[in-house]
Amino acid sequence: MSKPLILISNDDGITARGIRKLTELMSSLGEVIVVAPDSPQSGMGHAITVGDTLRIRESKLFQDIGVKAFECSGTPADCVKLAKHHVFKGRKIDLVVSGINHGSNSAINVLYSGTMSAAIEGAIEGIPSIGFSLCDFSTNAYFDHLDDLIIKVVKETLSKGIPEGIALNVNFPVFKEKEPIKGIKICRQANAKWLENFDKRQDPYGRSYFWMVGDFVNKDTGEDNDEWALANHYASIVPCQFDMTSYSTLNHLTENWSINS
Amino acid sequence: MSKPLILISNDDGITARGIRKLTELMSSLGEVIVVAPDSPQSGMGHAITVGDTLRIRESKLFQDIGVKAFECSGTPADCVKLAKHHVFKGRKIDLVVSGINHGSNSAINVLYSGTMSAAIEGAIEGIPSIGFSLCDFSTNAYFDHLDDLIIKVVKETLSKGIPEGIALNVNFPVFKEKEPIKGIKICRQANAKWLENFDKRQDPYGRSYFWMVGDFVNKDTGEDNDEWALANHYASIVPCQFDMTSYSTLNHLTENWSINS
Repeated sequence: MSKPLILISNDDGITARGIRKLTELMSSLGEVIVVAPDSPQSGMGHAITVGDTLRIRESKLFQDIGVKAFECSGTPADCVKLAKHHVFKGRKIDLVVSGINHGSNSAINVLYSGTMSAAIEGAIEGIPSIGFSLCDFSTNAYFDHLDDLIIKVVKETLSKGIPEGIALNVNFPVFKEKEPIKGIKICRQANAKWLENFDKRQDPYGRSYFWMVGDFVNKDTGEDNDEWALANHYASIVPCQFDMTSYSTLNHLTENWSINS
Repeated sequence: MSKPLILISNDDGITARGIRKLTELMSSLGEVIVVAPDSPQSGMGHAITVGDTLRIRESKLFQDIGVKAFECSGTPADCVKLAKHHVFKGRKIDLVVSGINHGSNSAINVLYSGTMSAAIEGAIEGIPSIGFSLCDFSTNAYFDHLDDLIIKVVKETLSKGIPEGIALNVNFPVFKEKEPIKGIKICRQANAKWLENFDKRQDPYGRSYFWMVGDFVNKDTGEDNDEWALANHYASIVPCQFDMTSYSTLNHLTENWSINS
């Protein structure tokens, strides 16, 4: 194919190191335009801006590598929508990539993830879309061990395609000195979740407030899911859809409930 | 069963008329506690508050009908998490209901919906959960034609149960003078989406900004989905899951991609 047109976004904001790495990698594969939030948007899920205005400004952050970039006041999903309509206008986007997220988006995290909402928004628009995340929350996370793997996944996506309406949720294990990532596992979303707790504190004015804290608990004993892959030092790819219908429950309710017309 | 313990939330905020109606209806069925956002949270998707504090305060808004209520500074998903841990503490919640949303959450809207994120958060916690929405965005929407239907759905849920991890997405058509709602259709999420547009304007300081506007487009020609049900004056119930894995794509990629380990 001719040089593909690639839209890059994320949820950690346009200044994050992860999006810088992803942009450097993608600019070797096609024409790249970055449209990313002007501030961190972690945990934004599939939020969009309704009832408020949106702003978008050109950014010079990626000028040194010859990449056009825009920072947007909205959420990751807003960025993709605004990119398509305002930045790319009529041009056909061949790929949306989001990330590299500083932190895991495996298992249930996919629901809370702004990174994945940008990718899913791309999928809704009928564009092949991928969200990349590294299981390391730190601002200074090490990303260099992912170069070949990311290129591999993107090349496979561009050459073989993915079914319409699907976004890939790709997660990577952290760098280990003497243990390269073993490979890639295409797998399902693990049935693991957060066990939240709330740390109650007093502000200087005597009023109480909370910090949400929690432990990630994996009760999924399968070996065909993303948590297993990551724990065993593989990269994981979960193909995600935006049809949230539970068809098995649909059949169950149709057969067992008496209120259906 | 003994009097069920019901948690009520929404995304339009604790002062909205929809949550007032839902609370009035639920207080005839069980012990009710309201934990809802202190400001409108429409379009928040499954956002959670990370990296910022949360506040929760007791509210007297439902004192006249003997219902305990709390307003929370966070998103709908935060409300359910904070309710479970801070308000209900060890008590077992029998049902989470969210809404009644002022506006449709059918089809793709389920992804952007704060109302449904509260219900899905309940489902993640293993609690039977239902989001109710009316296809009318106005603040003064008429809700009285829904009384019997909502009671019916909740009674069926409490008596027959729903599979663990499932939240029901219930949408209602608007009131029509001479046409009562025909019944309830248990159905799948329609493949309909928004065709966005951006209304570009100038602020008083000469800088441009955008309003997101759009048309809802339904290309789904099936008769087994929520859009069909609503268009034909039925209430729709879509059972929703939080496993976003596309299993058909998982099989397709496993067979056709060469990068899988």
